[in-house]
Amino acid sequence: MSETQRQIKLGIPKGSLQDSTLNLFERCGWKVRQHHRNYFPEINDPEITARLCRVQEIPHYIQDGILDVGLTGKDWLLETGADVHVVSDLVYSKVSNRPARWVLAVAGDAPFRTPQDLAGKRIATELLGVTKKYFADLGIPVDVFYSWGATEAKVVEGLADAIVEVTETGTTIRAHGLRIIDDVLVTNTQLIANKKTWEDPWKRRKIMQIDLLLQGALRADDLVGLKMNVPGDKQDAILELLPSLNSPTVSQLKDSHWLAVEIVVDRSIVRDLIPQLVEAGAEGIIEYSLNKIV
Amino acid sequence: MSETQRQIKLGIPKGSLQDSTLNLFERCGWKVRQHHRNYFPEINDPEITARLCRVQEIPHYIQDGILDVGLTGKDWLLETGADVHVVSDLVYSKVSNRPARWVLAVAGDAPFRTPQDLAGKRIATELLGVTKKYFADLGIPVDVFYSWGATEAKVVEGLADAIVEVTETGTTIRAHGLRIIDDVLVTNTQLIANKKTWEDPWKRRKIMQIDLLLQGALRADDLVGLKMNVPGDKQDAILELLPSLNSPTVSQLKDSHWLAVEIVVDRSIVRDLIPQLVEAGAEGIIEYSLNKIV
Amino acid sequence: MSETQRQIKLGIPKGSLQDSTLNLFERCGWKVRQHHRNYFPEINDPEITARLCRVQEIPHYIQDGILDVGLTGKDWLLETGADVHVVSDLVYSKVSNRPARWVLAVAGDAPFRTPQDLAGKRIATELLGVTKKYFADLGIPVDVFYSWGATEAKVVEGLADAIVEVTETGTTIRAHGLRIIDDVLVTNTQLIANKKTWEDPWKRRKIMQIDLLLQGALRADDLVGLKMNVPGDKQDAILELLPSLNSPTVSQLKDSHWLAVEIVVDRSIVRDLIPQLVEAGAEGIIEYSLNKIV
Amino acid sequence: MSETQRQIKLGIPKGSLQDSTLNLFERCGWKVRQHHRNYFPEINDPEITARLCRVQEIPHYIQDGILDVGLTGKDWLLETGADVHVVSDLVYSKVSNRPARWVLAVAGDAPFRTPQDLAGKRIATELLGVTKKYFADLGIPVDVFYSWGATEAKVVEGLADAIVEVTETGTTIRAHGLRIIDDVLVTNTQLIANKKTWEDPWKRRKIMQIDLLLQGALRADDLVGLKMNVPGDKQDAILELLPSLNSPTVSQLKDSHWLAVEIVVDRSIVRDLIPQLVEAGAEGIIEYSLNKIV
Amino acid sequence: MSETQRQIKLGIPKGSLQDSTLNLFERCGWKVRQHHRNYFPEINDPEITARLCRVQEIPHYIQDGILDVGLTGKDWLLETGADVHVVSDLVYSKVSNRPARWVLAVAGDAPFRTPQDLAGKRIATELLGVTKKYFADLGIPVDVFYSWGATEAKVVEGLADAIVEVTETGTTIRAHGLRIIDDVLVTNTQLIANKKTWEDPWKRRKIMQIDLLLQGALRADDLVGLKMNVPGDKQDAILELLPSLNSPTVSQLKDSHWLAVEIVVDRSIVRDLIPQLVEAGAEGIIEYSLNKIV
Amino acid sequence: MSETQRQIKLGIPKGSLQDSTLNLFERCGWKVRQHHRNYFPEINDPEITARLCRVQEIPHYIQDGILDVGLTGKDWLLETGADVHVVSDLVYSKVSNRPARWVLAVAGDAPFRTPQDLAGKRIATELLGVTKKYFADLGIPVDVFYSWGATEAKVVEGLADAIVEVTETGTTIRAHGLRIIDDVLVTNTQLIANKKTWEDPWKRRKIMQIDLLLQGALRADDLVGLKMNVPGDKQDAILELLPSLNSPTVSQLKDSHWLAVEIVVDRSIVRDLIPQLVEAGAEGIIEYSLNKIV
Repeated sequence: MSETQRQIKLGIPKGSLQDSTLNLFERCGWKVRQHHRNYFPEINDPEITARLCRVQEIPHYIQDGILDVGLTGKDWLLETGADVHVVSDLVYSKVSNRPARWVLAVAGDAPFRTPQDLAGKRIATELLGVTKKYFADLGIPVDVFYSWGATEAKVVEGLADAIVEVTETGTTIRAHGLRIIDDVLVTNTQLIANKKTWEDPWKRRKIMQIDLLLQGALRADDLVGLKMNVPGDKQDAILELLPSLNSPTVSQLKDSHWLAVEIVVDRSIVRDLIPQLVEAGAEGIIEYSLNKIV
Repeated sequence: MSETQRQIKLGIPKGSLQDSTLNLFERCGWKVRQHHRNYFPEINDPEITARLCRVQEIPHYIQDGILDVGLTGKDWLLETGADVHVVSDLVYSKVSNRPARWVLAVAGDAPFRTPQDLAGKRIATELLGVTKKYFADLGIPVDVFYSWGATEAKVVEGLADAIVEVTETGTTIRAHGLRIIDDVLVTNTQLIANKKTWEDPWKRRKIMQIDLLLQGALRADDLVGLKMNVPGDKQDAILELLPSLNSPTVSQLKDSHWLAVEIVVDRSIVRDLIPQLVEAGAEGIIEYSLNKIV
Repeated sequence: MSETQRQIKLGIPKGSLQDSTLNLFERCGWKVRQHHRNYFPEINDPEITARLCRVQEIPHYIQDGILDVGLTGKDWLLETGADVHVVSDLVYSKVSNRPARWVLAVAGDAPFRTPQDLAGKRIATELLGVTKKYFADLGIPVDVFYSWGATEAKVVEGLADAIVEVTETGTTIRAHGLRIIDDVLVTNTQLIANKKTWEDPWKRRKIMQIDLLLQGALRADDLVGLKMNVPGDKQDAILELLPSLNSPTVSQLKDSHWLAVEIVVDRSIVRDLIPQLVEAGAEGIIEYSLNKIV
Repeated sequence: MSETQRQIKLGIPKGSLQDSTLNLFERCGWKVRQHHRNYFPEINDPEITARLCRVQEIPHYIQDGILDVGLTGKDWLLETGADVHVVSDLVYSKVSNRPARWVLAVAGDAPFRTPQDLAGKRIATELLGVTKKYFADLGIPVDVFYSWGATEAKVVEGLADAIVEVTETGTTIRAHGLRIIDDVLVTNTQLIANKKTWEDPWKRRKIMQIDLLLQGALRADDLVGLKMNVPGDKQDAILELLPSLNSPTVSQLKDSHWLAVEIVVDRSIVRDLIPQLVEAGAEGIIEYSLNKIV
Repeated sequence: MSETQRQIKLGIPKGSLQDSTLNLFERCGWKVRQHHRNYFPEINDPEITARLCRVQEIPHYIQDGILDVGLTGKDWLLETGADVHVVSDLVYSKVSNRPARWVLAVAGDAPFRTPQDLAGKRIATELLGVTKKYFADLGIPVDVFYSWGATEAKVVEGLADAIVEVTETGTTIRAHGLRIIDDVLVTNTQLIANKKTWEDPWKRRKIMQIDLLLQGALRADDLVGLKMNVPGDKQDAILELLPSLNSPTVSQLKDSHWLAVEIVVDRSIVRDLIPQLVEAGAEGIIEYSLNKIV
Repeated sequence: MSETQRQIKLGIPKGSLQDSTLNLFERCGWKVRQHHRNYFPEINDPEITARLCRVQEIPHYIQDGILDVGLTGKDWLLETGADVHVVSDLVYSKVSNRPARWVLAVAGDAPFRTPQDLAGKRIATELLGVTKKYFADLGIPVDVFYSWGATEAKVVEGLADAIVEVTETGTTIRAHGLRIIDDVLVTNTQLIANKKTWEDPWKRRKIMQIDLLLQGALRADDLVGLKMNVPGDKQDAILELLPSLNSPTVSQLKDSHWLAVEIVVDRSIVRDLIPQLVEAGAEGIIEYSLNKIV
């Protein structure tokens, strides 16, 4: 088989992460389009065949070589215990910088304060194996049972004494009147590969290309470009305000003592930085979005 | 506690069966109403408290006494192995009289003809335990793994060699291009009770009331009432046409040789019976629906 | 104008009550059909022209003679103070027999126990006039202000100290964490007429026809028909079980000692009555729905 | 081929009439169920295979023998000029008794009063052939062109001088500010059969069974059952009120001078009949729905 | 209390303006996220707590100090007569530059030409106080009554002689066949603050930061960035075409007589400017979007 | 009439292309807004009036001068045979670079291999005239008939032997189990004008402005801007990697040997270009989107 016909099999999570993942791949130049009556999504790269799978099943398929590479969660990788190569962590930007975590939660007015207080109690969760191991490692005997969804409601309904459930900010947990008493697992999306695939130089290079571009696009979500004009005599004061890690691009305007300054900064500091720049004498400040930064 | 304050805890399946089950209870006189922000549905019987649970979790809750009585499927009762009392089978009327069954299916063009041909292959299913036992009983070594939904698609996508999935008519299975090679389990809805609950005379009587009315309402789905006027001299010929198991109610009309005949018949024979009755001389045939028949 | 051309103008509430009201009229023989781009719904009675209006505006239109007759709530009739003739109360069947009522509610953990505790506080409501009168009659000085919907949330959000809001079972009130401290007004749907209209014999007769049929259809919601066959020697025991207010229709079956018994009973007692009838020897019990009972 | 394997091919209109037609067949005992990924709907009668087709295409398929029998509109039968056997007219119950008709309509403020005024003008319609023939028969030269939906809007948008469009009550036409100046065609649903099919005795008998039951179910839409108790001495006065065409079923109540009277009447007269029956002394009047009347 | 713990309470309009307002705040660096079961939206700035309120109620809450600062409409500020500090006008970009206005409208074929013609007539509106004042100032006695939505329809339905309703372009008014006879009030969104809040230096500074960024983001909606390459000898001609108020950034390209020119221009002139720039010799013209311009 | 009052009438396709077309015009500076109850969309250019029409009807309206200019498909222009001036082709960016085409397709297992094999067969299509001409030109006698949508299903349902249907990638055709045996027509969107309109200098200039901007915006869909910093000594190696057709903008950074390089490249090569640039020593690579490129 000639090199141009080589292909890797890529697994993309379907369900709640599907739209944001397909959008991420599109920003990286890979358009994945699923057709109504067709199982195999089309992808505009002859070197890749893509499949949409449940995030929980991807580790299994990659371990068995049904897929070469895919995205999954660190939580489900642990739960399944699949034997794969972890290529990298992919941290999606969300409302807060707090990572997603599986927490142990009880009713707000329950007497339980620590995991030890739950000895002999009933715990509902979708993450059965990890939860059992968590309590076993602590030496606490509990009755862990599998929850088919709507887990938060189970404590309120009296069907369980505690739950282990995933949350980003804790808001949904608290909205159900629950109280978090411990973190069981911190998780994030991961790019994982089959171990044999990773030994193949052509396939490894292809996977690293995917990783470089995914990381570049994810990084761009948190950053914006700023441009401004700066009088020559205020250059130092203004450059001092800019975050030291990102070196600005400074160019002399033609026939003028003004400078054009461009910089990439974290989106979250802009609302504080702009008032300071205005005060320091910068003019014509514009902010624009980035697709990718490498 | 006085007898009038006694209560049983009833579990109703949520999800795909929820609407038809709530409708069934309403036809029996129990209005169950779920409120947007409330976990506990309201029920208009002070002797019952109702909860909506996943059908897969109900056997577990009833075994542990969290619930007294509930509806579940024979399949999930077997899968969970819960130790409960089976009160009765509740056969919902559907498009066909064929019961729901879990079948073993493979790709239409696969070489597999019998379960034995699947030795060493990968089988996806949501009914993990029952499927493992089915192959173990046959002495066939296979790799059974858990499927998080969309099971039929897995064979087409090359993620599994065979599936075990539930179907009523086989239509969805065939629409995916699959071929059924064996029946693994025939299933239907069941009314089940906690074993201690069943020993309590008051609670058992209450459960039997529920069962009597649910059965009466389910039976009425398949039956209709027919009324007709019959000339006295054609009475015998017409009564002969009527199904022998249901004895008709015959009354003499006032000042007339005509008789009024009423009968309850299976809905499915009406389209053939009516043309015969017309031919035999019956007049003014009307058909009406029933809520319940006991 | 000839009598056949006479018409009354009927106002039907739009919004939350619209579907159930149109359905009620349809069961009475009046099909009201609203067209997408048309203001005037079509009605299949040349003696009526129908309009869909906000329930709050109907009293006003009827007082002014813009409409002759209409459905509204006792609450909005009081609030607007419109001078109309109240024809009758129309009690729609709902989950409970508890009528809708406007209640005074406060935060669950607030120190207020009686209306008097709210002196000097802020009260949000959509029923401004009635609420002001309620507090004035009690001699309690408060600041009542108009709420543009989502009233229950206002206490939680700290925007009001108490609310006056409508509820049937109190469930939504409690789901917001509120506590009811008094009933302000018990309400139900009413059929009301313009006072001059009511003096016109032709129009009054038409309105009374509407009222008779609406009442008959509403009553049928709560009732069902039962038929059963009864052996002659058990007739007395069985008839004794039947509610005394509704006299059963009993007829002798032809050439038999069995009787056919028909009766109309309250839907809510059927679940208790049927087990008793079975025990007493009734056979072939069937239950069917009614459209109307007069 | 044995007789039990004989089949007729039935065409059912898809689109706006689909739901009401499938519901009609279900009331006749034929459950037609369409599956998501399947072209052929399943039907619970081994003697029929069903297909869903556009109503406009059915005449064509029946003429060519692709289908044996089907439902279509008289309008599309004429438009296509298909050579088929018309079995019967099926008049669906709608808001009014006025049949659907294709009308010629112009802008409300246009100078056109008669079809003749449209000489030389532009006419938009979906019923191209019938419209052309209509104008040709009148000897009026016009430019008729095909409209791809939203026909009523074309006059308003200045894209056509007149339209020919279907309407039941004229409401949508008027809502667009149009004025009807002539009726082009009155139409209704028809049951039609292939001419060769109609010559086959087995198939003709099957088609007549379908027709008998469809007619029985359609008739039941417009009728209801009434039961009442009548004192013996008022029997004559009350029976006189009942429509003469439907002969009532009268039976003597046991040990009583009261009679039980049952009758089937047109739904549309109930609202006038019930007040009269009450006045004449009938008691315990109940109304119930019918599925079918033959 | 330490300065870092200080907070202002911000009111955001819910309903029709909610999505565009939340999007505007997000572009300014404030992510506001509302959770399904929670009243208080989360905001990623510890110095702000946010609340979603009806736009009509915000002035009232700010006057009373329930909120410190918020967005409302000039119309509802006038209607409520609330005593607050108006920080600035926020002009959202819409399809036209015509501001929203409340107009007095009558039926297209009504005889009314001026407000005076409405003496003694019935006027429906949601803006009761402003409308009453408008007529009182003109000395015209009218009957103004409150409209519960669908105001435009009231004239058509014969329920009112005129309406006062908000519109941007007049399109909806005209689509109902109404004719505008006067402007009652021109309105736009405003940022308003509680008067005491405004005296607090820390809070005023925070409000001014919010205002600076909101204005910067709104301005960016109407502007785009243009870049182009310009030959040195055509520099003057091309720079002359550019709008004089925005001074372009000009830099010399390396080892070339070409210049790079960047400028920010109004989005609405681009469609006319680009053809002129092409004609004048500019090359490689690219246009890109801006997030903010200060 | 003064020049500023001159207007052209523009036809925009409604239906499946409507949203992408309105979005395209908005990116060019023309906001087209359709109001719920209004036929004429509003457009923010006094020189244009816009109308939404079915794509199939636009050629007809433009030929007759009802519209001056509009977007349609080459397929429908051919089908209608309208006599218009074709201004330009507008190639929308889609998942693949393969243009849309009308293909001749048959059942996957049918014996037909070439158009000639279809002699005497039944062909269903929405593109009646083009299809008839295609077969006539080949001298193949067939029965072409009009299909009212869902054309692909007709072969499967046995209603046609072959179809002529539009497809971009062939996916939907194959998903129905069909096999393509020939291309009938390759099509794309076109900007067309009335022939008299095109002779009017003012109108022609306006149409050319529309065309210039639409083309600029469509081109920008496939391109992105890249900026990077490059060490002076690696300049040549890096510039060599950049596509030769697009000349990069290079400027010297102030007080440094680094250069700033900006270039516009095809979106589809970025995923391969970025890894190469990183390897060659470029730093701070950022990618951003373009609105338009002329």
